[in-house]
Amino acid sequence: MKIARFSSAGAIHFGVLDGEELVVLSGDPMFQGFDTTGERVPLAEAALLAPSIPRSKVVAVGKNYVDHVTEMGGDTPPAEPLLFLKPNTSVIGPGDRIITPPQSSQVEFEGELAVVIGSIAKNVAPERAAEVVFGYTVANDVTARDLQRSDGQWTRAKGFDTFCPVGPVVETEFDASSATLTTTVNGEVKQSAPLSDMVHGVADIVAYASSVFTLLPGDVILTGTPAGVGPIVAGDVVEVSISGIGSLSNPVAAARS
Amino acid sequence: MKIARFSSAGAIHFGVLDGEELVVLSGDPMFQGFDTTGERVPLAEAALLAPSIPRSKVVAVGKNYVDHVTEMGGDTPPAEPLLFLKPNTSVIGPGDRIITPPQSSQVEFEGELAVVIGSIAKNVAPERAAEVVFGYTVANDVTARDLQRSDGQWTRAKGFDTFCPVGPVVETEFDASSATLTTTVNGEVKQSAPLSDMVHGVADIVAYASSVFTLLPGDVILTGTPAGVGPIVAGDVVEVSISGIGSLSNPVAAARS
Repeated sequence: MKIARFSSAGAIHFGVLDGEELVVLSGDPMFQGFDTTGERVPLAEAALLAPSIPRSKVVAVGKNYVDHVTEMGGDTPPAEPLLFLKPNTSVIGPGDRIITPPQSSQVEFEGELAVVIGSIAKNVAPERAAEVVFGYTVANDVTARDLQRSDGQWTRAKGFDTFCPVGPVVETEFDASSATLTTTVNGEVKQSAPLSDMVHGVADIVAYASSVFTLLPGDVILTGTPAGVGPIVAGDVVEVSISGIGSLSNPVAAARS
Repeated sequence: MKIARFSSAGAIHFGVLDGEELVVLSGDPMFQGFDTTGERVPLAEAALLAPSIPRSKVVAVGKNYVDHVTEMGGDTPPAEPLLFLKPNTSVIGPGDRIITPPQSSQVEFEGELAVVIGSIAKNVAPERAAEVVFGYTVANDVTARDLQRSDGQWTRAKGFDTFCPVGPVVETEFDASSATLTTTVNGEVKQSAPLSDMVHGVADIVAYASSVFTLLPGDVILTGTPAGVGPIVAGDVVEVSISGIGSLSNPVAAARS
């Protein structure tokens, strides 16, 4: 089931995708279930929004694909997931503009699978991780590569407003083992990798993150990017697609000076 | 004015400290002003809570006192504030237990001045930073020093549940230039420094953070720790005091295995 959050005729709703229509839900399905209002909205008339706004945090994993570790000049990926945080103020939705800040001259895309947490979770075992996952979506871990290098800590480089596009929908039934991630910039393929290339899989990442933080409903976990990352500049359109979920497309613009 | 958030007779209130009593406010003063209900609660009968729960983030600054940079084996502090994030799930209040996690064998205290943001803030100039500050409180940037070293990224080491004690009150009129921070463990003084030793002052930190992230009301900014950091273990009581604000005391306990 593919769930969208969208605005239509001035109101914000959740809906279930049915072909080219959205079946409107009575409330947020994470908390209020899947009752419908009886209305249907054509997908073409709905403005899709980020399908989850984390009340607490976006947890992200670095160095989780061997070929990306290599392209960054690294040797072997870490034995445990390397965690960092992106603030909820960095989250934007499908079609929203990624704004390159004046502090950076090297903003890059990183296409990633994102996990949406559905219930309060602490110290979850890997074999029970699926129970706390609401669904899966697509994300772009936008990174100011120059600031990532100069700061050492990745917080600023990955935390700017608009640096966490998420969407277009949350897929509640998804099998990462057979899915592929593709990132294009202006239609040219830059990243293409099976999600099975992840060093630490979804269940291990959820379990590990929950051994550190209490995860809250709506929190999002980004699972790392494969090789092929590169720059985006004002005027570009970057699109991250995962088979079985959908495509997340965002134009890039420069901050007004 | 010193503002507390507290529970009394099963309900949660905000109140203004008046001697040994709390004057009960009608709502959260950050959003609803300072109207009072007419009730007064003896401080001794109020259980103080974290005075702010960040809706978005705890921003923190590393390496902001020269003597702490030196004790950590560093050379000179960074030219700009070094930012990192602690999740809102790490926040606890006065008297709450700091839980040392099984993953670490070296949990340390870091006493710090904390700034509570009062309004939505982006790209605030240093000379206008005071306009977006609601007030000041005391914080302990609890850190698993072993994991900080082994991970490189500080997120896990500083992000565990209970690793951000905040309180006891928010002081709305505070002059950092004449205040002193003191940290004790079991009554023994470990840190003692004038806040004027900060490399980057409050106005510059708020401005810098707001040049990266949109700051939201209730967000908290930790301004760095002076020299003297050291371990805390189960059974200890750690207290961070700032003259003009108050004392934040927390017992330490080990996670149940």
